[in-house]
Amino acid sequence: MSADDPKMADEPKEISGETKLRVRYAETDKMGVVYHSNFVIWFEVGRVELLRQLGFEYKTMEQQDNCHIPVVDLRVRYKSPALYDDEIVVRTRLGNARHSLLHFLYEVARASDGTLLATGETTHIIVDDKFQRCSLPEKYMKAFGGKRRIANS
Amino acid sequence: MSADDPKMADEPKEISGETKLRVRYAETDKMGVVYHSNFVIWFEVGRVELLRQLGFEYKTMEQQDNCHIPVVDLRVRYKSPALYDDEIVVRTRLGNARHSLLHFLYEVARASDGTLLATGETTHIIVDDKFQRCSLPEKYMKAFGGKRRIANS
Amino acid sequence: MSADDPKMADEPKEISGETKLRVRYAETDKMGVVYHSNFVIWFEVGRVELLRQLGFEYKTMEQQDNCHIPVVDLRVRYKSPALYDDEIVVRTRLGNARHSLLHFLYEVARASDGTLLATGETTHIIVDDKFQRCSLPEKYMKAFGGKRRIANS
Amino acid sequence: MSADDPKMADEPKEISGETKLRVRYAETDKMGVVYHSNFVIWFEVGRVELLRQLGFEYKTMEQQDNCHIPVVDLRVRYKSPALYDDEIVVRTRLGNARHSLLHFLYEVARASDGTLLATGETTHIIVDDKFQRCSLPEKYMKAFGGKRRIANS
Repeated sequence: MSADDPKMADEPKEISGETKLRVRYAETDKMGVVYHSNFVIWFEVGRVELLRQLGFEYKTMEQQDNCHIPVVDLRVRYKSPALYDDEIVVRTRLGNARHSLLHFLYEVARASDGTLLATGETTHIIVDDKFQRCSLPEKYMKAFGGKRRIANS
Repeated sequence: MSADDPKMADEPKEISGETKLRVRYAETDKMGVVYHSNFVIWFEVGRVELLRQLGFEYKTMEQQDNCHIPVVDLRVRYKSPALYDDEIVVRTRLGNARHSLLHFLYEVARASDGTLLATGETTHIIVDDKFQRCSLPEKYMKAFGGKRRIANS
Repeated sequence: MSADDPKMADEPKEISGETKLRVRYAETDKMGVVYHSNFVIWFEVGRVELLRQLGFEYKTMEQQDNCHIPVVDLRVRYKSPALYDDEIVVRTRLGNARHSLLHFLYEVARASDGTLLATGETTHIIVDDKFQRCSLPEKYMKAFGGKRRIANS
Repeated sequence: MSADDPKMADEPKEISGETKLRVRYAETDKMGVVYHSNFVIWFEVGRVELLRQLGFEYKTMEQQDNCHIPVVDLRVRYKSPALYDDEIVVRTRLGNARHSLLHFLYEVARASDGTLLATGETTHIIVDDKFQRCSLPEKYMKAFGGKRRIANS
């Protein structure tokens, strides 16, 4: 995803992953392309699969650790339309991880030809099930290489 | 909705209502019409507005009375496509109301020309927030004219 | 899917397939389970993947053969709630295939424990891009073992 | 919306409007609040209703003028959760209008108590039905007070 980034030897390892999905008919609109809000849902898919690849399940974060990560800031830049039945690659990268805040970056591409369809980012706060701010449990912070900036947007 | 139904003097009053909504671009698909699962959401809108017209809020049913009505059976018959920006009328009628079960019937029409777009019905059980079967509180049963069959589908 | 079904030698082969998907957070509702209209979208996923397993792409049916299959009748029976992050199996079976009509049957189950979550069926007419009734092209009829009843619901 | 804004005589009139909608059960998620991508759809509702208040229908822009305005940039800042059955006010303001680009700004609030739930903005390019860049027809430019910056974000 950022193989061409020159990196210093002591720089933190990039935390990123990718997942694939298939465009559903329900996600298209009368322009014949994917309706734009669906990319936001695909970001969610990418984020959750990145967590899974790191050994965590978001449902467990919620149920066992009472730790929820609602989105407080969302940005999407649409580059090219996604089409019905396209196989889509969502690449997700952990940006910033702090005890109170998570930042993810996304690239959405068509699998068949690699066309970049959109880029985006989301910022999340950490709350409990009463929406009170709380801290990301240590096990996650550790896995996320936290407190330091991990990737530059 | 069925004012022309001849009714016996002692027959229960029909419980029905209607509400309007506007087709969103997000609800269309690449066929240029509304994607069919959205009618199911419109049924929900119709049902909730019928409850409101009867003096109840479904959110209050859930929060104060711990009474939820998940759908256990759904049927939709699609007659004609709904189009982007159409103003839609959802007519909802209470079918059967029992302490353990509710039945609603729907007609979805285009407001501008009255074209019938779909008909449907949903059956709901009554459960608490742990999904355990429970009884519809008396105040609702009373308002719903319950235990008897109210309308024939 | 039903390889263990004893069948008479002259009975038409069952046309069925299965596909998996993962429940998205976006698909849940405040009851903590999947909102019921999403099953209708999963039926679409099942149907399209069954076509793909038969060697067809629905997008090609639309683009090259000007053959669209809108739903005219939908039935869902909900058995048990689907939960966030559940891996879901959608089993789709071709019911009836005629030149003017297709009928599919569905079973939706939780992959981890096999719990049946819902069953359903959809009936589709064949139309062109102007929504005019037309015939299912021969190549599909052939693959679908058409004109005969293939499976009993 | 901002009638109390003191304005210089020669300043362009602000182009803004507001519309209301009701939160649907389908729009909530298992956190018990509205899933964040739905705000993006509400922005669409706000935008289309602003156009209607200016005397235009977006469907007519598409059908008669072959003028489509896909989103190329989206930003949302979430301030407070939207709840089931909340009546929502979407305030939409035209930011920049040029022949090749439109910019809208949004405020989403709870009607009952005025709580600001989210702010956002979208940037749109003008394309024909083949996704080729084209110009916004003059009648829209005139109504939009185009070529000048109309409102500051």
